Amino acid sequence: MPEFLELLAPDKARRLWLDRLERLPAVETILTENALGRVTWEPVIASHPLPAFNRSTVDGYAVRAADTYGASESLPAYFHLVGEIPMGSAPKLTIQRGECALVHTGGMLPQGADAVVMLEHTQPARLQEIELLRAVASDENVLKIGEDVSAGEMVIPAGVRLRPAEIGGLMALGVTQLPVAARPRVGILSSGDEVIPPGQAPAPGQVRDVNAYTLSALVEAAGGIPVRYGILPDTAQALHAAAAQALAECELVVITAGSSASSRDLTAEVINQLGKPGVLVHGVNVRPGKPTILAICEGKGVVGLPGNPVSALVIAMLFVRPAVGALLGLAEVQPTASVAARLTTNLPSQAGREDWVPVRLVDGDSGRLAEPIFGKSNLIFTLARAAGLVRIPPAATGLSAGAPVEVILL
Amino acid sequence: MPEFLELLAPDKARRLWLDRLERLPAVETILTENALGRVTWEPVIASHPLPAFNRSTVDGYAVRAADTYGASESLPAYFHLVGEIPMGSAPKLTIQRGECALVHTGGMLPQGADAVVMLEHTQPARLQEIELLRAVASDENVLKIGEDVSAGEMVIPAGVRLRPAEIGGLMALGVTQLPVAARPRVGILSSGDEVIPPGQAPAPGQVRDVNAYTLSALVEAAGGIPVRYGILPDTAQALHAAAAQALAECELVVITAGSSASSRDLTAEVINQLGKPGVLVHGVNVRPGKPTILAICEGKGVVGLPGNPVSALVIAMLFVRPAVGALLGLAEVQPTASVAARLTTNLPSQAGREDWVPVRLVDGDSGRLAEPIFGKSNLIFTLARAAGLVRIPPAATGLSAGAPVEVILL
Repeated sequence: MPEFLELLAPDKARRLWLDRLERLPAVETILTENALGRVTWEPVIASHPLPAFNRSTVDGYAVRAADTYGASESLPAYFHLVGEIPMGSAPKLTIQRGECALVHTGGMLPQGADAVVMLEHTQPARLQEIELLRAVASDENVLKIGEDVSAGEMVIPAGVRLRPAEIGGLMALGVTQLPVAARPRVGILSSGDEVIPPGQAPAPGQVRDVNAYTLSALVEAAGGIPVRYGILPDTAQALHAAAAQALAECELVVITAGSSASSRDLTAEVINQLGKPGVLVHGVNVRPGKPTILAICEGKGVVGLPGNPVSALVIAMLFVRPAVGALLGLAEVQPTASVAARLTTNLPSQAGREDWVPVRLVDGDSGRLAEPIFGKSNLIFTLARAAGLVRIPPAATGLSAGAPVEVILL
Repeated sequence: MPEFLELLAPDKARRLWLDRLERLPAVETILTENALGRVTWEPVIASHPLPAFNRSTVDGYAVRAADTYGASESLPAYFHLVGEIPMGSAPKLTIQRGECALVHTGGMLPQGADAVVMLEHTQPARLQEIELLRAVASDENVLKIGEDVSAGEMVIPAGVRLRPAEIGGLMALGVTQLPVAARPRVGILSSGDEVIPPGQAPAPGQVRDVNAYTLSALVEAAGGIPVRYGILPDTAQALHAAAAQALAECELVVITAGSSASSRDLTAEVINQLGKPGVLVHGVNVRPGKPTILAICEGKGVVGLPGNPVSALVIAMLFVRPAVGALLGLAEVQPTASVAARLTTNLPSQAGREDWVPVRLVDGDSGRLAEPIFGKSNLIFTLARAAGLVRIPPAATGLSAGAPVEVILL
């Protein structure tokens, strides 16, 4: 497929490509306490209700609600105090008509009681006698069995990335280990005769490999395992051998070309030899990152990224990150972390093309401002100085100063 | 200090407390390739410029710009082709008047050349002769030495959390290892006679420990190391012994009380015995989470959290997370990940109090909607079902349906 004959919008290109990505079943069972950021493999079903017993939500007196009918500040009701409910065990006492028991927040309601009167609406009368200054309805100040979760309820669907709240919910149900999607391995190859490892001192004309490390970090943050295959010279043989090994060992392969056009052409050629159907998309209507290659080789995704570090990182956000999510089985595209701001200046754009512009965030008098960072696109520190990226949609011919924008955090 | 006599707003309470937190120097040197999410200990200074040589930003012909003056489609200029610049090494040739050399994107400009004419603005004429159809200015299509970064420039300040872009920038400069802030250890204690480990089956009246695990996950995500000290019974002696050990071994200590008022009172008493000055804030004007305790004991931060899992997690986001950031030396409060949405319903609130309301996100016809999840505040799955939290500021008496809100992602 010749380069740039047909330029798809990023959204269309991504859908076309992800739809053909095969997800091979890969699951592992891990301890819930280590599961932060992992993705559920199957739905989690509650084996019992939460709470498992009727609990008081306040400090007060457990009563039969019906007995409090008519009680008020001016006409208090008098209740016989039959005891105190200890925290952490079942009450041994039972509440009969006209009786009450001291109960603490989180304590279990005794037999017979169906409501709790808050401590501040009571006062001690004579020995073992309490004045209630307010009536309560049945279930008032009570958390009933199953009010959070009922037995058999599906509490977390498959394909959910676990956050602190889900970890807590699992522990509350006694789910101390669970099956999660195995982290997909993402093979990362750099090519380009000018590229050398970062630990070496570059001779004139040479540059250090940046992409292998920005991509590794992005893959790690997305929940994958980066596997680096080093820097390959711009020869079909060397690149093919390394790419074939990566494809055999990984679920996804990302090749960053050198910056020259010949290096990019070589990438497409090598990818087409890796397996069928090969290159699906060659060129995307986006800036930066037009020379992007999206391929499927024997069911596995292969991405050819432009060599320039800014393009490579932006395109990885648009394609590699969602591919890792798809391989993890993420049920839905989760909202990308962003902050709302207003543009400081006009941002022109070419209609039909999607632009991603790095911005820094500045506090303005009337709220947060997004200030575009202009610069030639191959400057990695342009991104290091940016808080995030602003998207100019394909249909727009730009955005105006003052326009509200969503800054996708880097 | 008696509970709730003076209720500070969360922002004021946080400032008062963080200002007295002592940060002990703790640094470690790690490989840059493992530094994602770590925080720079000292500023990073560029030892050399980037790029280190004048590079072409396009595929084309390197020329002396002055020689192209007046060239146009109708009146092309003819240049003698003296060779091709190989990628990755210094050109051996020099460009004289009327000469050009083929150069690829990223290639090094030869001696004598100061601009590049794009390939698409040229055509081959006779052997070794190229027609230029357009004039170029000096430096056109050239990335000059130091245009990204100059030698001696401070490229990353101290106290910056490293993202993929910074990792790439460091590699571009050959910084393959660097000093970063050591991860602060955060001691986590649970108390409450009703609380049991998640692996045990609860008897009536007992509940599993949720907070130790939600807090561990939150601390981990914030860049700290959670250290769990188990579940302590509600006795001053047991709680004090464990808290004193945690304070000796960690930089920050978080104690979640049981749900009863007596357990909360015990926490404050134990914290005051840990060291001077002790409890600074007892009670914050926030819902959920009013019974929060913020203390400094011998320079280290100690937090007493309400036992209810939702309050504990919300308060940890408001106080524990920024404290971990402060201990890491984060230079500024970085923007919290959030998404913009519009409220589906009115949210009433009490003036003077800051409220945090869990919401789910729904796609509406006119954009993203935030739908409040109502429910009693001690239901952990209320949070598990939420995408994030909406803040109702202390000054407001609520938010109206349709109001734009920032949903802080959980």
